[in-house]
Amino acid sequence: MHFTSEQRLDDGVLEREFTLGEIPGILWTPGSASAPAPLILLGHPGGLHKMYSRLAARARQSAAEGFAAATIELPGSGDRPRSAAAEQARADLHRALEAGEPVDDEIVDRLVLPLVEKAVPEWQTTLDSLLSLPEIGGPVGYSGGVISIGTRLAVVEPRISAAVLFAGSFVPRTMFEEARQVTIPLHVLLQWDDRGNDRQAALDLFDAFGSKEKTLHANMGGHTGVPQFAGDAAAQFFTRHLS
Amino acid sequence: MHFTSEQRLDDGVLEREFTLGEIPGILWTPGSASAPAPLILLGHPGGLHKMYSRLAARARQSAAEGFAAATIELPGSGDRPRSAAAEQARADLHRALEAGEPVDDEIVDRLVLPLVEKAVPEWQTTLDSLLSLPEIGGPVGYSGGVISIGTRLAVVEPRISAAVLFAGSFVPRTMFEEARQVTIPLHVLLQWDDRGNDRQAALDLFDAFGSKEKTLHANMGGHTGVPQFAGDAAAQFFTRHLS
Repeated sequence: MHFTSEQRLDDGVLEREFTLGEIPGILWTPGSASAPAPLILLGHPGGLHKMYSRLAARARQSAAEGFAAATIELPGSGDRPRSAAAEQARADLHRALEAGEPVDDEIVDRLVLPLVEKAVPEWQTTLDSLLSLPEIGGPVGYSGGVISIGTRLAVVEPRISAAVLFAGSFVPRTMFEEARQVTIPLHVLLQWDDRGNDRQAALDLFDAFGSKEKTLHANMGGHTGVPQFAGDAAAQFFTRHLS
Repeated sequence: MHFTSEQRLDDGVLEREFTLGEIPGILWTPGSASAPAPLILLGHPGGLHKMYSRLAARARQSAAEGFAAATIELPGSGDRPRSAAAEQARADLHRALEAGEPVDDEIVDRLVLPLVEKAVPEWQTTLDSLLSLPEIGGPVGYSGGVISIGTRLAVVEPRISAAVLFAGSFVPRTMFEEARQVTIPLHVLLQWDDRGNDRQAALDLFDAFGSKEKTLHANMGGHTGVPQFAGDAAAQFFTRHLS
């Protein structure tokens, strides 16, 4: 992990860009911390530059609660090399949505499963590096989309002890079986009128999660319209489980 | 409204039992209030004595936020005269549930619609009396089940400006049309694995509500197992909307 830039934000939070091999990322740590901070991994749909302002806002809210937060670019997004197969799957998805057709499982599988296969080990390698920093301790939470990445991480990565999952992307059928294996506390966010999302699949996935503590928060406002109070509730979930 | 008893609880909250005609009720007011308090009407499934400890806990949490809280006995419950038709409908419902059969709409209509017809005007009369007390001002919220009563109140009673609705009871088909007329902010609680409830109907009702701000919080724990953090989130909703 190489830090490539560093700036102190106006609320005292230290923001550092890094690269981990070819993967760019950003780490935010609280301005004042007497002990190693718990860590929240910030998931997103890809495109660090495009997502920066929303990610930084989530990170700063986390830092105000005493948490470090980190994110990395997704495979095939931002400045990372494109995958022709993923681009084709994305185009096929958009074509189906624009035509108002049901989205074939086969398209979802082609789009999401290779992404999960590539992204999850990258998150785990990132976690190795982050936890070796003296200013970062544990426990660790995952927050965000892509929900299939969060689900797989919750199954295979024992260092993640709680997750806020954003149910805003299509879910391959095989993920429902993986969801049954999840046991950590979950806080699932669903935008009820998210036109580019399959609401019933999100509800089915919530039902499938094996966790004894799981909460679904559904709100209005479209895909990007998560209300401030819903973000606050997600932050409270982490305060309960990671503090 | 005649107060029949009065006691000061250990947190300073004043608890007064009252009767309004033949309807018994309880009013809780904060220990120290410099101005008339906002009011939360506490709905419940009937049986003030049986429900007392849970109602008092909700009232004391509300009082800690500066709210008065009040509840009345439902028609046909507690010490109030039974309705033979309602008792028959309740027996028919339990028979269907115990047999694992789907519950006929006709049974739900017989059980719920007359209750809504009787209970809603009683809540409105109670509200008249409560708002005439100098220690109670506004705004007013409704919190609890029976969800059809809360839905009707939200439609017909303009003094209610926000509601926490507990989706834990069967919903007559006609209520879905009424739900579309609701416009106040809503916070809907659903116990996901509530065996005596129709989850899909609860989701359909949430979908039907016309409110621009509506939030669904689904949790595990069965009908009576609403987690403490879900109660806290409902309290925060009222703090946002009634303070």
